[in-house]
Amino acid sequence: MSKIKIIAFDADDTLWQNEDFYRDCEIQFCYLLSEYGNPQSISEILFQYEMKNLDLYGYGAKGFVLSCIETALAVSKHQVSNQIIQEIIELGKKLIDQDIHLLEGVEATLKSLFGKQRIVLATKGDLLDQERKLNKSDLAKYFHHIEIMSEKNKKGYIKLMKHLDVRPDEFLMIGNSLKSDVLPVLELGGYAVHIPYHMTWQAEKVKDENITNPKFKTIQKIDEMISLIEEWY
Amino acid sequence: MSKIKIIAFDADDTLWQNEDFYRDCEIQFCYLLSEYGNPQSISEILFQYEMKNLDLYGYGAKGFVLSCIETALAVSKHQVSNQIIQEIIELGKKLIDQDIHLLEGVEATLKSLFGKQRIVLATKGDLLDQERKLNKSDLAKYFHHIEIMSEKNKKGYIKLMKHLDVRPDEFLMIGNSLKSDVLPVLELGGYAVHIPYHMTWQAEKVKDENITNPKFKTIQKIDEMISLIEEWY
Repeated sequence: MSKIKIIAFDADDTLWQNEDFYRDCEIQFCYLLSEYGNPQSISEILFQYEMKNLDLYGYGAKGFVLSCIETALAVSKHQVSNQIIQEIIELGKKLIDQDIHLLEGVEATLKSLFGKQRIVLATKGDLLDQERKLNKSDLAKYFHHIEIMSEKNKKGYIKLMKHLDVRPDEFLMIGNSLKSDVLPVLELGGYAVHIPYHMTWQAEKVKDENITNPKFKTIQKIDEMISLIEEWY
Repeated sequence: MSKIKIIAFDADDTLWQNEDFYRDCEIQFCYLLSEYGNPQSISEILFQYEMKNLDLYGYGAKGFVLSCIETALAVSKHQVSNQIIQEIIELGKKLIDQDIHLLEGVEATLKSLFGKQRIVLATKGDLLDQERKLNKSDLAKYFHHIEIMSEKNKKGYIKLMKHLDVRPDEFLMIGNSLKSDVLPVLELGGYAVHIPYHMTWQAEKVKDENITNPKFKTIQKIDEMISLIEEWY
């Protein structure tokens, strides 16, 4: 096998908690609207708006809040109070300004790789959201390069590999999303490591989770990747 | 003088129209709220919300729409109708999905530089907004590198120059904003060209527009820069 030259890490739910904050926010949002429906049905309508708006708004907290407001207007049949809309905006501001909680083993793993490997951060989402989280995490110092992508698909990874001047089989991606971190990289001929997170946003779920590819592994904790890389070398 | 190795272009209101669309949107927004105040006072309150929210939301259409909604709640003293909030959201969607109108001489200038100079795009704003506009413009093919920055300040330019492996005195920035395109680059020792646009967003205005620096020029149209660069060489 060829030598892996780049190890790329996803950020949200791979290095730090993220989905938990969105789900907490959604629970509070559904609670605000409880006179108009049960949480499950409101969540379903919110998800429909998020998917409908995804091409326009992209990922990130601001698009999420705008979809929440549209959902509130829809489920209340245009009866929702101004007070509730104000509270939705405030929920969104708290979400944007969330604290950073690093996942277990993250800093030790990055420290152990730093200087031995070229490590990069490859995350999707809103530019300012992701920069803010990275600054708060104090992890930027470990990364050779930081790429904030509007979408993690094959096209996005080809651009990143070209920029980093590596072939797909010299590139390893690590993350919690089979859809965004694993499948497009394997399809290009790269390596991928999946670290499942305890919750997955519906839009990141894939139908078939059985992947058989010698360049793919699932691990439970990020520090397991150190021995895995040695095995692959 | 040293040789200029990188020519960097701003995008909004330098390569294509942008501020016009925001101001059109704002006029329609003020019209929707006309029962609660005159356009000028509503615009002033909107600007206050935009500035208050800038650190959290950054630049771009989604943050603008969220500030519009907060303004509507405030100026109406929480009396604005759901219908108007829906219409604000729709105005925002139209703004995001705006057509691209290239400014005069842009494509000819880029074509003329292409292959002779390393030209880059350095724009600030929302990642997806800016990628969408660039795709629609069909100008991406001319750029050696595209940098979408969350803020165009000295720190951002130092990072960009480091990435491009050039010294400040090998870097020329061209754009319509003295605050974002000219002053930070001159302060670092780089070259800057100002092309005033017929309208400037209040947040991009600077107090003193008199700049005396041999590395600075003002031109009226983008194609004048071709002869200017020859002069500087």
